[in-house]
Amino acid sequence: MSHPHPDLSSPPALAEGALRVTPLGGLGEIGRNMTVFEYGGRLLIVDCGVLFPEEEQPGIDLILPDFTSIRDRLDDIVGIVLTHGHEDHIGGVPYLLREKPDIPLVGSKLTLALIEAKLAEHRIRPYTLEVAEGQRERIGPFDCEFVAVNHSIPDALAVAIRTPAGMVVHTGDFKMDQLPLDGRLTDLPAFARLGEEGIDLLLSDSTNAEVPGFIPHERDISPVLRQVFAKAERRIIVASFASHVHRIQQVLDAAYEYGRRVAFVGRSMVRNMGIARDLGYLRVPGGLVVDVKTLDDLPEEEIVLICTGSQGEPMAALSRMANRDHQIRIVEGDTVILASSLIPGNEAAVYRVINGLTRWGAHVVHKGNAKVHVSGHASAGELLYFYNICKPRNLMPVHGEWRHLRANADLGVATGVPRNRVVIPEDGVVVDLADGVAKIVGKVPAGYVYVDGLSVGDVTETSLKDRRILGEEGIVSVFVVVDTSTGKIVGGPDIQARGSGIDDEAFTPVIGKIEDALLKSAADGIVEPHQLQQLIRRAVGKWVSDTYRRRPMILPVVVEV
Amino acid sequence: MSHPHPDLSSPPALAEGALRVTPLGGLGEIGRNMTVFEYGGRLLIVDCGVLFPEEEQPGIDLILPDFTSIRDRLDDIVGIVLTHGHEDHIGGVPYLLREKPDIPLVGSKLTLALIEAKLAEHRIRPYTLEVAEGQRERIGPFDCEFVAVNHSIPDALAVAIRTPAGMVVHTGDFKMDQLPLDGRLTDLPAFARLGEEGIDLLLSDSTNAEVPGFIPHERDISPVLRQVFAKAERRIIVASFASHVHRIQQVLDAAYEYGRRVAFVGRSMVRNMGIARDLGYLRVPGGLVVDVKTLDDLPEEEIVLICTGSQGEPMAALSRMANRDHQIRIVEGDTVILASSLIPGNEAAVYRVINGLTRWGAHVVHKGNAKVHVSGHASAGELLYFYNICKPRNLMPVHGEWRHLRANADLGVATGVPRNRVVIPEDGVVVDLADGVAKIVGKVPAGYVYVDGLSVGDVTETSLKDRRILGEEGIVSVFVVVDTSTGKIVGGPDIQARGSGIDDEAFTPVIGKIEDALLKSAADGIVEPHQLQQLIRRAVGKWVSDTYRRRPMILPVVVEV
Repeated sequence: MSHPHPDLSSPPALAEGALRVTPLGGLGEIGRNMTVFEYGGRLLIVDCGVLFPEEEQPGIDLILPDFTSIRDRLDDIVGIVLTHGHEDHIGGVPYLLREKPDIPLVGSKLTLALIEAKLAEHRIRPYTLEVAEGQRERIGPFDCEFVAVNHSIPDALAVAIRTPAGMVVHTGDFKMDQLPLDGRLTDLPAFARLGEEGIDLLLSDSTNAEVPGFIPHERDISPVLRQVFAKAERRIIVASFASHVHRIQQVLDAAYEYGRRVAFVGRSMVRNMGIARDLGYLRVPGGLVVDVKTLDDLPEEEIVLICTGSQGEPMAALSRMANRDHQIRIVEGDTVILASSLIPGNEAAVYRVINGLTRWGAHVVHKGNAKVHVSGHASAGELLYFYNICKPRNLMPVHGEWRHLRANADLGVATGVPRNRVVIPEDGVVVDLADGVAKIVGKVPAGYVYVDGLSVGDVTETSLKDRRILGEEGIVSVFVVVDTSTGKIVGGPDIQARGSGIDDEAFTPVIGKIEDALLKSAADGIVEPHQLQQLIRRAVGKWVSDTYRRRPMILPVVVEV
Repeated sequence: MSHPHPDLSSPPALAEGALRVTPLGGLGEIGRNMTVFEYGGRLLIVDCGVLFPEEEQPGIDLILPDFTSIRDRLDDIVGIVLTHGHEDHIGGVPYLLREKPDIPLVGSKLTLALIEAKLAEHRIRPYTLEVAEGQRERIGPFDCEFVAVNHSIPDALAVAIRTPAGMVVHTGDFKMDQLPLDGRLTDLPAFARLGEEGIDLLLSDSTNAEVPGFIPHERDISPVLRQVFAKAERRIIVASFASHVHRIQQVLDAAYEYGRRVAFVGRSMVRNMGIARDLGYLRVPGGLVVDVKTLDDLPEEEIVLICTGSQGEPMAALSRMANRDHQIRIVEGDTVILASSLIPGNEAAVYRVINGLTRWGAHVVHKGNAKVHVSGHASAGELLYFYNICKPRNLMPVHGEWRHLRANADLGVATGVPRNRVVIPEDGVVVDLADGVAKIVGKVPAGYVYVDGLSVGDVTETSLKDRRILGEEGIVSVFVVVDTSTGKIVGGPDIQARGSGIDDEAFTPVIGKIEDALLKSAADGIVEPHQLQQLIRRAVGKWVSDTYRRRPMILPVVVEV
């Protein structure tokens, strides 16, 4: 098993007849999935997603893959295959198409509908190629075959990419529900056929590789929902992902059975469910869905609201209901169902929402106290089946943090993949498939690219480091006006603190010290503003540290008049 | 079931013969447990703990209960009963004793030893009264009986408090392991006897009320540990809480069996294990424990390190090992065991540590992939037993967030406590027990008191709001020097941005606008610095918002010369 080396350098030129695989996102993290395949001077991209920021990235809206390594090769890109319509697989597309709008997008009907709706908001009309399972399309030098996989969104595809270097299969996200709601199974016979032909390199979803056993069927949620519906006294509010068509289908079915009407709440939920309904992925009995504005005319026990916010997002409907900051006012006897996963890192926010709802008297049903969620990713037991069917010659776990990638690698080894044929690259680590062997050969830039407001990439690690200091310790600004002709202080020192928990008046003792130091510097002939600023920073920083044991950012400004 | 009302006011004077119960912490949160009992003009406090800050409280070290409502009654306090030695029950004691050092501390041998060690660091020597299970002590007007309970630290006690108003039982933290490692059971016969006598009000631990069934035995961890030890090739590193004597006992036993030596790493771990050993709570075979400095002399396969950091705390040994920022360098083949809970809110930090360790090649065993942790709090099945044995006349769930308190209330009701005899106050909500009925009667201040560096209470919600803005958006400072005699700008505008992701040079367009606006103001005779600052704040804020869709803090300073 290869271990990425910190001192990898730029990769060598790609050998004739070899295939290069470069993950630009999704390895070492859950999100911003993006893999670049190179053969014969052409590039094929599979997925281009976003990563949602954590606590460590304050104020950031989205994190993109770094396009640096492909930026001067945009004309070589023959297409972007989108395996399914989740944000961590399609969310980066508008940013890549901004750089070259005519790169063709390849995906299933629902996937393309979702990305087109997103691109419309960015005023981009893409070139598209719709494909379906079983279809085979030549995209540049890449001979692509699409295979149905089951996931937590309909119409997901895996892709088998054939080049003279061999066959590579990329699973995208998948699980192996054997009784899927729409009957669309992960096509194991197709994977078996590919395995017989010979899968030279398998890139496989690692998200649940640490989870033992098998994921329950999506349809197992239905009886649980019905139980909750049967007991609910007043309104029912269901929070889920805006793309989870099958989950929402089951809520609609339960609502229909129990004589309730349904209103969708929130822009993305309304939009996506509209698309899913129009394309036939969501079956909605006539009259079941009503506009949220008409709810006042219905008795409470006939209402179901379906909204977003299941991850505790502060601006989403559910959080605002928990804070009594939404037109829907939670009351004793309301039932709230969080029919969704709890993405690691969101626990504090989600429990804050659950506590808020509970405090107002709602009965909150969530995956911690009822089986109202099943995962969309194959767990260890399923992955063992999958590897035994695919019999990959080389295995590259993708889509996961290190703990997931390692666990997935171990599963592959357990099914017989030789340990030296398992590669675990990280984002940006380049893997060449040559002579049937996958090997790490170098590294390209793959850092986080931050989207903040309108700007992409302007907010850097340095800005974030400043934000962390500002956010934890606050800032003390010190302003002094110096007369350049005399070197004397003629205005200030003016000291202002924000977020430090220190009153501006408390700085009186240090003002005298600054004045003394500046006068002494002036006498010594030191008048260069940069030197004076350093002197102020040190004096104030030391005083605050000694007095309060804190280290706010000190921002000294010396202005000359 | 009473629901706390937002418009509660100060409570009325306490009626003759009634008992007042005021939780100052631990209700609506996990942490800073503190309850004040008042009878006949005297106060008895049970526990005085700290809460650890979340993301929402950046830069904060600790959160204390608000002592405002007892501050002018310090002389009425007859004692502080400490149920056990965890930080969320004793961590606030040094801060309360700073206000009055001679309040007696009442607790078991281990509990007092731990608080005394902590107080020594604050240079406080407390007055103490050591008690043991079965003992009955009159503390002022409060007739206290101490009852053994089982928890994730040895020597924990519940307390039954008798006054003429009736008997109140406070469980502290507890679970009901029926095969505890030290044989010290939660004393159900004693609780049965109290129940027969009549428990007028039961305050009961809610932490696991949402968890169905029963908590496994602490000793069930032992075979799992042995399995991991049997397979470990190189060093074993175990992270746990520094107070979890029984967990660490099991690690010591496994190490002894597998011929390994043990070194404790970290100040609190070394200190607490020394105390536990000296007092006979930890059995250590001679020669088993060695100093960490001597480890270089031992082969790797004979080493066990026990350290803190199981919650992903960035400064603890384990995080530093994950970041290769510790003398212990993790290598391929090392085994790391996180033998601890994962406190909600810490997931992202803990997974970051697990990923870091995995990336360096360690095999990481944690509660997500092996049964290396059991909880210290009674779950739903145990609480049902407990309520059926205690038969409380009134029930007040304590120690939990809203979701836990509600679930615990429902368990009480299921065992026959009338719903109108269950009170769920929040922190600061005052409950009077009079004529055998517990009722909410008012509210006292119970906000968060922040410890940051050396200061207690100086950092306010306003400071934290500033920190959040600074941390998410950064700051733009604008300095201008104005000549008061003419009203003209004579220095600046000097603009500096930190954490905003905007280069200082990018502000050139707005500098001209500020200059124009200030000159116009000067011409109009507006020279008041406050007005000019407002003008600058608006101009810069609007420009940044229009240009970047961001809202950094704007700090305008106008200095007159």
